[in-house]
Amino acid sequence: MYGDGVFRTFMLRGGKPLRWPRQYAKLAADCGVLRIACPAADVLERDLAAVAMRFPDCVVRIVITRGAGERGYAIPAAASPVRVVCASPLPDYPQRHYDRGVRVQLCRIRLAAQPALAGVKHLNRLENVLARAEWNDPGIAEGLLCDADDNVIGGTMSNVFVVSRGELVTPDLARCGVAGVQRELVIGLARSNNIPVRIANVSIDELLAADEVFLVNSVIGVWQIAEFGQKSWSPGRMTTQVRRWLDHA
Amino acid sequence: MYGDGVFRTFMLRGGKPLRWPRQYAKLAADCGVLRIACPAADVLERDLAAVAMRFPDCVVRIVITRGAGERGYAIPAAASPVRVVCASPLPDYPQRHYDRGVRVQLCRIRLAAQPALAGVKHLNRLENVLARAEWNDPGIAEGLLCDADDNVIGGTMSNVFVVSRGELVTPDLARCGVAGVQRELVIGLARSNNIPVRIANVSIDELLAADEVFLVNSVIGVWQIAEFGQKSWSPGRMTTQVRRWLDHA
Repeated sequence: MYGDGVFRTFMLRGGKPLRWPRQYAKLAADCGVLRIACPAADVLERDLAAVAMRFPDCVVRIVITRGAGERGYAIPAAASPVRVVCASPLPDYPQRHYDRGVRVQLCRIRLAAQPALAGVKHLNRLENVLARAEWNDPGIAEGLLCDADDNVIGGTMSNVFVVSRGELVTPDLARCGVAGVQRELVIGLARSNNIPVRIANVSIDELLAADEVFLVNSVIGVWQIAEFGQKSWSPGRMTTQVRRWLDHA
Repeated sequence: MYGDGVFRTFMLRGGKPLRWPRQYAKLAADCGVLRIACPAADVLERDLAAVAMRFPDCVVRIVITRGAGERGYAIPAAASPVRVVCASPLPDYPQRHYDRGVRVQLCRIRLAAQPALAGVKHLNRLENVLARAEWNDPGIAEGLLCDADDNVIGGTMSNVFVVSRGELVTPDLARCGVAGVQRELVIGLARSNNIPVRIANVSIDELLAADEVFLVNSVIGVWQIAEFGQKSWSPGRMTTQVRRWLDHA
């Protein structure tokens, strides 16, 4: 009723959930922000195993909602969270997205600043729906979203990294945006490989001036941005390196 | 999944939906903002009639969601909106709320500014849930919500009017908040009775300095604020007048 819940989207490969400990940790943390009792890991693991029996290779989505209550915004005293675990086919993104990169555009809608919910992958995602509705051109793989101060926050379904002089910069998500598992993983992999990572405000100009820009999420993996407005980039070494780290992680 | 829909809450009395033309107009307008095809009025009227057969006096909620689609934020090309019409018991608010007024508190959470969704009664209502979770004291009837600039926007479930020197002032909802049917009705009734109404930013200090402050929605009707922090108000003439206009409207 109120988008009062959280979700995760990731892959099953050969019946195994990818990066499951991180996915579960993020799910539990996001539930914590909304004060929803997250189901225990083993409960969800049984759900995933049941899905894997029929669909060993799929995209899986776990949704946790607060559960039924009375009319009104008060949290029910004995709310019993609802979990939904469902499978979708693996996406068939063009190989070109990985070899050459993708074309993106800037969305007109600006993300609202809500520190109490920033970073959380909750179910209040009307901004993402409105942003995604801004284009129909199948040549546009993703839309970039800024906040009201024109800081780049991410894509409609992805986090963004900017590469400048050997350093990675990814937007600060303290006011809006979703802090994805893949973003966290890339930050950790880069640092453990002695690549500095800075979490900071990123302007459109900084993004346009970057040596490479890439998008990440748990389903797409890593897409370099090849075209954005008048600007274009060739496949870059850092993006390739990050993809390699992820493949081996 | 994404809170991608809108809703209305109002009363059936003696089997008749109260202020139905206004409720439907607002529902249709809100659907329009989200580009959801609103069901025709007569379809919903048949739903309401079916509810009224069993529950002639109740609170009724109409929810319109975008309908099923593929995984992801893209709006399905052939989305078929879902409508849910459901009844709840009439509330039994204490008569004191009407005779003496209510006690309210200020919520800590601030409403995020999102002009693309402001005023719309959409289903992304996590801010309201978090705000309502800030108090358990049954003596507190409502929480007041401000934006990030400390403008008062409304209550968690109500709109607010401030009375100063014979004028009504109600918060500008261009950046956040829900522009309710009862608010619109009060604005119209006041103006047609030669009471000036101003739509403007309202600070906490202005609210505290007001001669009267009252809350409205389609279910509570009109509640004057009797206590807010250290400040208290006696039942006021304007609030009583507004309630009388509504009763006769």
